[in-house]
Amino acid sequence: MNVLVINCGSSSLKFQLINSESEEVLAKGLCERIGIDGRLTYQPAGGDKAVSEKAMPTHTEAIQFVIDALTDAETGVVKSLDEIGAVGHRVVHGGEKFASSVVITEDVLKAIEECNDLAPLHNPANLIGINACQKLMPNTPMVAVFDTAFHQTMPEKAYLYGLPYEYYEKYGVRRYGFHGTSHSFVSKHAAEFLGLDLDNSKIIVAHLGNGASISAVLNGKCVDTSMGLTPLEGLVMGTRSGDMDPAIMEYLAKKEDLDMAGVMNVLNKKSGVFGLSKGLSSDFRDLTAAMNDGNPYANAAIEVFCYRVAKYIGSYSAAMNGVDAIAFTAGIGENVAIVRQKVCECLEYLGVSLDQEANKLFGDDRLISTADSKVKVAVIPTNEELAIARETVALV
Amino acid sequence: MNVLVINCGSSSLKFQLINSESEEVLAKGLCERIGIDGRLTYQPAGGDKAVSEKAMPTHTEAIQFVIDALTDAETGVVKSLDEIGAVGHRVVHGGEKFASSVVITEDVLKAIEECNDLAPLHNPANLIGINACQKLMPNTPMVAVFDTAFHQTMPEKAYLYGLPYEYYEKYGVRRYGFHGTSHSFVSKHAAEFLGLDLDNSKIIVAHLGNGASISAVLNGKCVDTSMGLTPLEGLVMGTRSGDMDPAIMEYLAKKEDLDMAGVMNVLNKKSGVFGLSKGLSSDFRDLTAAMNDGNPYANAAIEVFCYRVAKYIGSYSAAMNGVDAIAFTAGIGENVAIVRQKVCECLEYLGVSLDQEANKLFGDDRLISTADSKVKVAVIPTNEELAIARETVALV
Repeated sequence: MNVLVINCGSSSLKFQLINSESEEVLAKGLCERIGIDGRLTYQPAGGDKAVSEKAMPTHTEAIQFVIDALTDAETGVVKSLDEIGAVGHRVVHGGEKFASSVVITEDVLKAIEECNDLAPLHNPANLIGINACQKLMPNTPMVAVFDTAFHQTMPEKAYLYGLPYEYYEKYGVRRYGFHGTSHSFVSKHAAEFLGLDLDNSKIIVAHLGNGASISAVLNGKCVDTSMGLTPLEGLVMGTRSGDMDPAIMEYLAKKEDLDMAGVMNVLNKKSGVFGLSKGLSSDFRDLTAAMNDGNPYANAAIEVFCYRVAKYIGSYSAAMNGVDAIAFTAGIGENVAIVRQKVCECLEYLGVSLDQEANKLFGDDRLISTADSKVKVAVIPTNEELAIARETVALV
Repeated sequence: MNVLVINCGSSSLKFQLINSESEEVLAKGLCERIGIDGRLTYQPAGGDKAVSEKAMPTHTEAIQFVIDALTDAETGVVKSLDEIGAVGHRVVHGGEKFASSVVITEDVLKAIEECNDLAPLHNPANLIGINACQKLMPNTPMVAVFDTAFHQTMPEKAYLYGLPYEYYEKYGVRRYGFHGTSHSFVSKHAAEFLGLDLDNSKIIVAHLGNGASISAVLNGKCVDTSMGLTPLEGLVMGTRSGDMDPAIMEYLAKKEDLDMAGVMNVLNKKSGVFGLSKGLSSDFRDLTAAMNDGNPYANAAIEVFCYRVAKYIGSYSAAMNGVDAIAFTAGIGENVAIVRQKVCECLEYLGVSLDQEANKLFGDDRLISTADSKVKVAVIPTNEELAIARETVALV
């Protein structure tokens, strides 16, 4: 079956068409500037990337262009819509309502809408994408795959904040976690790759990208994760602060004469390694280059980033009373050897022994700990689209 | 030498007179409601506690009453002011200016004042206490002992937040840490008690009181601690939230129609185990009793509290690449066996083996890990006043 995977934002839409048997990507692309003017980027497997300006007043036009491109006589990869067996939609926030992926029904749409409050920037956009797809592909089954679902197995002690309990009951203030599709995919894949019995394993997944989160996966189930009510909490990220003294918000508001929204803007968009490096970059290629050139701010940014990751791994080892394997994934986790090295240097006490040479290589799934390392360390490239396609096929 | 130890708040003042040779407390007490009406509580060693209402329009009158009480012909413990060799003042925030205790001079007073911004509720009160003492005891040397000083050895990667670096440079936004006098006292004392070489040791101190913080002490020097710019960050406390997604502030402000100060009030005064237990109590005697009676909120409060402590111990093990000893101290750390038990249950992977029977006992310094425990666990009662007296004597 061919599965169309859709990740819909407020003015953009990413897509991949995946053959679920071969797990090949048949085509992929991106619609941008929806509601403004419109641009489609489309690339069939093995073919060239084509960019074209197209009027996209709403997401419906955008998805129509995607369908047109996929079924185009020349550069298309399927003959008609009939060859698309299902659509898998990434949905950011499933609240406590969704602990797994679901086939989309009217009730499901209503329940997703009820979570809008928790992700006001993302869920409404996800719903728009689903509605537009339903309009154009009324007979194709659709599945919602939630960023939060995998983390719903966390115990109360991990998801409750030290806040009045009523806020949890009335407003749903708790830790939800994000990147769940990636944490699920990578933890399962890591167990398989490392020859561990998933049902009897303690795996820590470090998803280190521009957004970064880490999770503790005990016997295949998430027991803790670093993102919280929103994706702002936890690790230091590209431009997000991650953990900090909440009192800093008030202090900064006064010092910089900002209101709450102004401070939130700083914490989400001007902080993280970007802010620590004095605005140099949020890209680790730039940061490592600058660090090697002796830039003290780039150095500070990388040191703080790695130290925070190492501390979370320590923390999650306590959460699971031990750790069998650590899996690095996503842009930085897969590609920045110095980050993995600095993190692992803090973890010798756990029995982590990094294979320095293996750590420097690039490639697919790979072991980077030595043969005698008590804790196995691996790099496991994530693939959220494939994970969404798999979840979708399993349900339709 | 007799040292008068003063801990001065905005409307209260705690004091102890300590003989530095015998380290005995000769008398102790408290002035309350300064600036309102005034009440003195005074107790000489071995004597009865006496409470008297006295007009205290300012801290000067309060300190005069303290001096009168200490030199009283009947219940006093010294004959005259001459028998008080020095005064040790607790000062909350020393910023980056003070990495150790100092003899108070005009320059020191100015430098403390420059830190007022970082502790607007505490430092001005501490300064008022110092000024009042100087007025009444002009010839007695005075020493300032800072809550933050012990933590000044933290490396940059531990004290920087994932925020624009300029905020650190311009406004001093960084982790400072508090309870430093206790962390210093307990870590040194733990090394001594456990027969460790302080200069070659990895000690984690869990100061668990109504305010709670934890620190990583490597070779006698603090390398990380859980409180931050302010005492709000870190562990779940009596009424303080500790760590949380910073975005919760904005979410709560909207939901509860609060401004920033309103949210801060909730986080400081209505949160922590008090808030989690639905306002039942911030006292662990009440909470453990309610938990044993099956109260689910008291249970949640204790579980969340202990889990957070365990995670910090895991995290600081990574910060030091290992841990030799864990020391519990302060009200909860010294007295609540179930907390120590729940924390240590998460730490078996580190080689922590709790002696269940020893853990149930009360008393002075005591080992609560088994003889074969790889990591030693101890209860070390803290004594901040004695620590301040020692610091004071060492400098005058």
